[in-house]
Amino acid sequence: MREKHQTAAILVIGNEVLSGRTREANAFHAAKKLFGRGCRLGEIAVVPDVQEAIVSTLNRLRSQFDAVITSGGIGPTHDDITMDSVAEAFGVKLIEHRFAVQLMTDRYGEDGMNDGRRRMTRIPTGAHLIRCEKSIAPGATIENVYVLAGVPYIFESQLESILSDFGDDEHPFIRHEIDVELPESSFSRELQSIQHKFSKVEIGSYPKMCGNRPCGKICLSGKDKVILESAIEAVSEMLNRIKNQA
Amino acid sequence: MREKHQTAAILVIGNEVLSGRTREANAFHAAKKLFGRGCRLGEIAVVPDVQEAIVSTLNRLRSQFDAVITSGGIGPTHDDITMDSVAEAFGVKLIEHRFAVQLMTDRYGEDGMNDGRRRMTRIPTGAHLIRCEKSIAPGATIENVYVLAGVPYIFESQLESILSDFGDDEHPFIRHEIDVELPESSFSRELQSIQHKFSKVEIGSYPKMCGNRPCGKICLSGKDKVILESAIEAVSEMLNRIKNQA
Repeated sequence: MREKHQTAAILVIGNEVLSGRTREANAFHAAKKLFGRGCRLGEIAVVPDVQEAIVSTLNRLRSQFDAVITSGGIGPTHDDITMDSVAEAFGVKLIEHRFAVQLMTDRYGEDGMNDGRRRMTRIPTGAHLIRCEKSIAPGATIENVYVLAGVPYIFESQLESILSDFGDDEHPFIRHEIDVELPESSFSRELQSIQHKFSKVEIGSYPKMCGNRPCGKICLSGKDKVILESAIEAVSEMLNRIKNQA
Repeated sequence: MREKHQTAAILVIGNEVLSGRTREANAFHAAKKLFGRGCRLGEIAVVPDVQEAIVSTLNRLRSQFDAVITSGGIGPTHDDITMDSVAEAFGVKLIEHRFAVQLMTDRYGEDGMNDGRRRMTRIPTGAHLIRCEKSIAPGATIENVYVLAGVPYIFESQLESILSDFGDDEHPFIRHEIDVELPESSFSRELQSIQHKFSKVEIGSYPKMCGNRPCGKICLSGKDKVILESAIEAVSEMLNRIKNQA
């Protein structure tokens, strides 16, 4: 059994996100799923449909993290250049995958196998198909890179089929949030002390305004339930103390 | 007058996005605003609250694009390390900015100037304050880097105050979308020919399913209205022809 990925990056490929046309959804979805499996997502990058940008970003991310999940650019149109770019990043050729051709031919018939559909059977040499319930057109995986579709319902379905390669069933990250009704500046020094004490817990403070009053949440996450609970207790005790002083 | 930025990148700093706690909103907002000013957004990167990651990503992006807008990590808590990281990226020290101290003292009084609020007056040496209507705590700009807050209503307000540095009032990008009720594979080859003919227009195809039928949009954008209209006509004519053949 190959070792599971403990860190990951997501590479979103698409002009539609950079132009503000589309609000990115797949990275957000995958972030939640990876967190739930205890795999640390270390970076999300969004790049345009430009081969040079895709290749250089992919090569940087795949050397820096255990695995990379890409989203987008594997359809049949001219702007779908992810498979070509992944092949270039690995220095291999694209080939029409025989089984993908068969799947498509079974579905659409010989007459239906136009250029566009043929284009979607191409994967980098040495890659394996990623199949899912929602689409006949496959994704692909090569070494530590997973190439998924950009259309959200297909991305989500393909992600389900690879998720067991990431993290660990038994050690997901756990998150706990504490409501706060104080300005951050009133507790920032003490929160820092608690963070220093609990190095295995990630503590973040996310302020907002509730009408005219500062409010927000302190968010604690980690894998060890016992340590997490001690940290939660320390933060709660600290907040109550400051509240009572005010 | 300094030259306006024609390309930009956005650097989002925040564990809350990578852990799937928060759906990122600021990059999406800024993407729309930059598009509207004709400034090309070339990359969005999301990195954790880790100084090394922020410094290396910022240095890469600021050398690659005309300007970088950062979002997040400028509050008073221990996880707010963006100003420290920007200072390190530029090889300068953080200083308490005298005018920022004055603004905060005027608001909160000498007694209210706790560690947290003092922390928010620090900006890199040589940087200028970015002020906005929504928050007393300032952002900062140094060379081609703009450091903005992560809280969305403050980010948006700060962005308004710097947006005139980007792109061009008179040459925004314009977008037009055409509804499609054909599978992408049926028009992908012809759409590629049209893209080749209109190199100044960016053409993207974004499929989805409408019930059991393929549908979607073809999206055209560019700065030249006349060329854009010719491309729109070419795509519409092509789609009608294929529809009538089917």
